[in-house]
Amino acid sequence: VAASQDASGTDPIADVQGWRDNRHIAINWVGVRDVRHPLTVRDRSDTAQPVTATIGMFVGLPADRKGTHMSRFLELLGENTALELNTASLGDLLKTMVTRLDAETGRIEISFAWFMRKVAPVSGVASLCDYEVTLRSETVDGRADTSIEVVVPVTSLCPCSKEISDYGAHNQRSHVTVRVGTDDVLFIDELIERIEAQASSEVYGVLKRADEKFVTERAYDNPKFVEDIVRDVAATLRDDSRVKAWTVTCENFESIHNHSAWATISSTD
Amino acid sequence: VAASQDASGTDPIADVQGWRDNRHIAINWVGVRDVRHPLTVRDRSDTAQPVTATIGMFVGLPADRKGTHMSRFLELLGENTALELNTASLGDLLKTMVTRLDAETGRIEISFAWFMRKVAPVSGVASLCDYEVTLRSETVDGRADTSIEVVVPVTSLCPCSKEISDYGAHNQRSHVTVRVGTDDVLFIDELIERIEAQASSEVYGVLKRADEKFVTERAYDNPKFVEDIVRDVAATLRDDSRVKAWTVTCENFESIHNHSAWATISSTD
Amino acid sequence: VAASQDASGTDPIADVQGWRDNRHIAINWVGVRDVRHPLTVRDRSDTAQPVTATIGMFVGLPADRKGTHMSRFLELLGENTALELNTASLGDLLKTMVTRLDAETGRIEISFAWFMRKVAPVSGVASLCDYEVTLRSETVDGRADTSIEVVVPVTSLCPCSKEISDYGAHNQRSHVTVRVGTDDVLFIDELIERIEAQASSEVYGVLKRADEKFVTERAYDNPKFVEDIVRDVAATLRDDSRVKAWTVTCENFESIHNHSAWATISSTD
Amino acid sequence: VAASQDASGTDPIADVQGWRDNRHIAINWVGVRDVRHPLTVRDRSDTAQPVTATIGMFVGLPADRKGTHMSRFLELLGENTALELNTASLGDLLKTMVTRLDAETGRIEISFAWFMRKVAPVSGVASLCDYEVTLRSETVDGRADTSIEVVVPVTSLCPCSKEISDYGAHNQRSHVTVRVGTDDVLFIDELIERIEAQASSEVYGVLKRADEKFVTERAYDNPKFVEDIVRDVAATLRDDSRVKAWTVTCENFESIHNHSAWATISSTD
Repeated sequence: VAASQDASGTDPIADVQGWRDNRHIAINWVGVRDVRHPLTVRDRSDTAQPVTATIGMFVGLPADRKGTHMSRFLELLGENTALELNTASLGDLLKTMVTRLDAETGRIEISFAWFMRKVAPVSGVASLCDYEVTLRSETVDGRADTSIEVVVPVTSLCPCSKEISDYGAHNQRSHVTVRVGTDDVLFIDELIERIEAQASSEVYGVLKRADEKFVTERAYDNPKFVEDIVRDVAATLRDDSRVKAWTVTCENFESIHNHSAWATISSTD
Repeated sequence: VAASQDASGTDPIADVQGWRDNRHIAINWVGVRDVRHPLTVRDRSDTAQPVTATIGMFVGLPADRKGTHMSRFLELLGENTALELNTASLGDLLKTMVTRLDAETGRIEISFAWFMRKVAPVSGVASLCDYEVTLRSETVDGRADTSIEVVVPVTSLCPCSKEISDYGAHNQRSHVTVRVGTDDVLFIDELIERIEAQASSEVYGVLKRADEKFVTERAYDNPKFVEDIVRDVAATLRDDSRVKAWTVTCENFESIHNHSAWATISSTD
Repeated sequence: VAASQDASGTDPIADVQGWRDNRHIAINWVGVRDVRHPLTVRDRSDTAQPVTATIGMFVGLPADRKGTHMSRFLELLGENTALELNTASLGDLLKTMVTRLDAETGRIEISFAWFMRKVAPVSGVASLCDYEVTLRSETVDGRADTSIEVVVPVTSLCPCSKEISDYGAHNQRSHVTVRVGTDDVLFIDELIERIEAQASSEVYGVLKRADEKFVTERAYDNPKFVEDIVRDVAATLRDDSRVKAWTVTCENFESIHNHSAWATISSTD
Repeated sequence: VAASQDASGTDPIADVQGWRDNRHIAINWVGVRDVRHPLTVRDRSDTAQPVTATIGMFVGLPADRKGTHMSRFLELLGENTALELNTASLGDLLKTMVTRLDAETGRIEISFAWFMRKVAPVSGVASLCDYEVTLRSETVDGRADTSIEVVVPVTSLCPCSKEISDYGAHNQRSHVTVRVGTDDVLFIDELIERIEAQASSEVYGVLKRADEKFVTERAYDNPKFVEDIVRDVAATLRDDSRVKAWTVTCENFESIHNHSAWATISSTD
C-alpha cells in the first residue's frame, strides 16, 4: 500500500488511486460529470453573461495506474469561478487540467443556457430567447480540438401539408442542433442567427399581435421539411473557412403526430 | 433492540424498522417509488394489453413506529405479475398492501404507456398511438379513492393567429392531461377519445397524403386557444355522472415561442 | 368581433383573446410556463448571485372572457431583467402581473440552480455545491401567499444495514425537498444548512482524502432511514415561528435496489 | 410539380417529397424518432417478454431527392406488431425498411425496459429487476451491422473510502452501460449477468434482512472504483470471440457528492 502526504493533514493517508494496476487496460476517459458551476461567457457585443454550467471533465488513464484523483477536477473548477469562457480560455483550462491530473490527454464539456436579446419584427418589442450551448475541448495529437454546439428552437412549416391542403399547413417547434469544430473566433450569437435564418421562421419571447401576423405569414411563405432545414444550414457552414468540421441535426416535434421527424448531415461521415 | 425471526434464516436478525420511535411525528406517506414492473391492462374490446409500469407504493406510518418494511411492497408486486389492472383490482391491491404493511392508510400510483389503434380519417390505414396513463388509489375514510389520469397528445391551432393573418395559422402539438375520480367503469379508451374530440385535431401514427390534407384543413377549421381546449374538455366531464371530481390541464408547445402556453380547470378548486 | 389598437401599428387588429365567452366556465390558471430568464438572488452575506430561472406565470380567467394576453407575461419579465428576487420582490411582481393582465388572481413559480460555498470539514478546501430552489407566490384572499422550496442532496446511511451487518452499511445520495410557506425573512442558505444538519452526512464539491475519511465515518456514526430524515427535518421546522406551513420529502436513490425509498410529512395533511 | 396517385383517393395529390432537389447535398440520416410501439423479445429460457419500445428509423437520402416518405416507417412498424425482436429479425426489418423507403442505407434503434427474474442470495425470494436495453442495426457496406446495449444498475463501494476510514465506506448506485457489436447469438440476460458479476454487488428488487446483510458485506468485501468496474467488465469482453467491438461505461452517482464519477473504455478508440 502506497501512502502519500495529504495536503490537509500531517498523517500519511493511503493514496489508493496511486496504486499500481496490473490489468494492462488503459482507460480512454475517466473523470466527473454533471458538475454544476457558475461561469461567465462574453457575447459579440462584449457583454459578460453569467451562466449556470453543467460540466464534464475527463482524462486518459494509463494502463499501470489504478485511479485518477477526482477531487483535483473540482479544485480546478473552484479556482476558475471568474473564468470568462471562450474557445481560447477553454483550451487553456484543458491544458492546465491535463498537467494537474498528471495525464497525457483530457476532455472538457461545458453546457449552459445562453440568452440572446431579440427584437420582434413589427412592434420592435425586445425580449430574450434561450439556447442550449455546449463547448467541448479535447486533446488530439497534443493540441486542443475545440467545438461549439448550439440548440436553436425554430418554427418549421410542412411544404407537403401546404401544397396539398386547400388552406392552412401544419407547423411546429423544431430544434436545430449545430456542432462546429473551429480554432477561429466564431461568436455563439453569430452562429445562432445564421441557423435561425434558415428555418420557416425564427421564434421569439414576446410577439405582439402585429408580430404574430408577421411570423405566421412568414412561416407560410417559407415552408421547409426537416430535410430542407438541415440542407440549408449545411450549405451556410460548408462555405465558412473558419469551420473545420460540422454536424447539423434537426428534430421537428410534429404537430400532427406524437413522434418526431429527424434528419442529420455531417461533414465527416 | 427488538429482534425478529427472518423468514430465510435460523438466527434472529434485528428488526430495526420495528423499533419504537419517540419523536412523536407520524409520517403521511412512506414507501417505494420508481419501481418498474410488467402488468396487464384490458381495453374496451376486452383485449389484454401488456404494459411496463412505473409504480409508487406508500403507507402512513404511526408516530410510535421507527420504520416501514420496504421489502414487503416489492414482494407484493412480485406476487401480482399476472395482475389485470383496473380500478377494481387496484382497490383490492391497495387493501392487501395496507394489511400486509400493518398500516391504516395506503396509496398506490401506477403509470404506463398505453396504446390505442387509430384509423386514418381518409385512407383508413390503421396505426397505434401512445398515451401516458396513471391510475391512483388512496385510502380516504377507510375506502379506496381511485382516479384515472391520461395525457393525450393533440394538435392545437391558434384562433388569434388565424384571425389576424392573411393566410396560415400557427399550430403545435399539445398535451391535454385529464384526471378523473371515479368509482364506476370508465374505460381509458373512452376517456381518450372524448378528449381528442375537443382539440383542433387529433394526432395519428400513420397519415397518408390524403389524410394529411384532411387533418391540416380540420385543424384550420377548428382553431382553439389553450383556454378553449380546457373549457371544452371540462364541459364534457361536468355532465358525466360517473365522474366525481376532475382536473383538465392543457400545455401547448408553442411553435412561435420557446415556451409553453398552459391552462388548468379543476372541479374542486 | 372586437378590435383593439395594437401598440405597434396604426391598423386595428382583432383582439380575439378579448372576445366574450359563453361557455360559463372560469379557468383556474392560464399563462406561460417553461420560460427561461436570467435573474439575480441575494444570499445571506448580501452577495448578488446571478441565476438562470425557469418560470411559470398564471392568472385566473373569468367565465366571460375568451382568453388572456400571453405576451404581457413575457413583457413583464423583460422589464424585470434587473430584478433581485426575494419573497418581498416576488410578491410585488405578482401584484403587478395581476394588474397588468387585468385579473383578480395570479400565481408565479420561479425555479433555479443556486450555489453555496462550502468548506471541507478537515482540509478546509472551499467548493461550491448546487441546490434546486423554487419560489412560489399566489394570490389567496387578496394577498400574496409565498413559499420557498429547496432540494438538498445529502448522504443517507441505512440503520438496518449497519445493525445487521458485521461490517459496512449501504448508503446513497438522497434528495431532501422542503417547502415552507413564510411571510418572514428566511434565507435560502439558512434553510439548506438546517436540512443538511439532519442527514447522515452533508455532501460537498471537493473532498480531499482526510475529508473523505471524515464524512465516511460521520455517515456511519449517524445512520438514518428515509423516515428518520423527514422526521428530524420536520422537528426543526415545527418549532420555527417564521414558518407557517411546511412539507418535507426525502427520496433515497437506494444503492442496493434500482428504485427509491421515499417519505413525506406535511404540516397541513 | 410531380403528382402521384395516393393509395386512398382517386385524385392525384402532389408528392412533394418526391420532387427533385438541386442543392447537391446528400443527407446522412432522415426519418422518425421517439416513436413508441409494443414489441416482443425472447429471453434465454425462450419466454416471450412483451416490451414497450421507443424507436428511431432512418435512411440515407440521395442529393437529388427532396424528401423521404415518413409515413412508410410507421406503416412498416404497424405491419410488425407481432415481431419477435432479436439481432436476426432486426437485420431483416432493416433490409425491408431500406427497400420500402427506396434507399441505399438505413439505421434502426430500438430501446426498451427489459426485466430479469433474480433470486435473493440468502432468502431465495424471487423478484424482477429492470434494465434499459437498446438494439441498433445499420447498413455498413451493404450488410447489417448490429449492436446490443444494456444499462445495468449495480452497487459500487469506494476502495479509497474503505482503506482510509476506521469503519464504513461510501457506496452508491452505479449504471454500467455496455454496447457490443455482434453477429452471433448473444443473449441479453447473459450479457447482464456478466456485467453484474464485476460490480461491488449486484442490486435486487426484493431483499429480506438476511439478504441485506449479505449484499452489504459482499460490497464491503469487494470495493471497486469506477475505473475498476470498467476495466473488469472490459476484461470479460475482450476474451469473447462473439464480440466484435465493445464500449464499457460506468457512472457512479456518488453518495458524498452531488455529481457523478464516470469512466469509459472502448475497443475502437
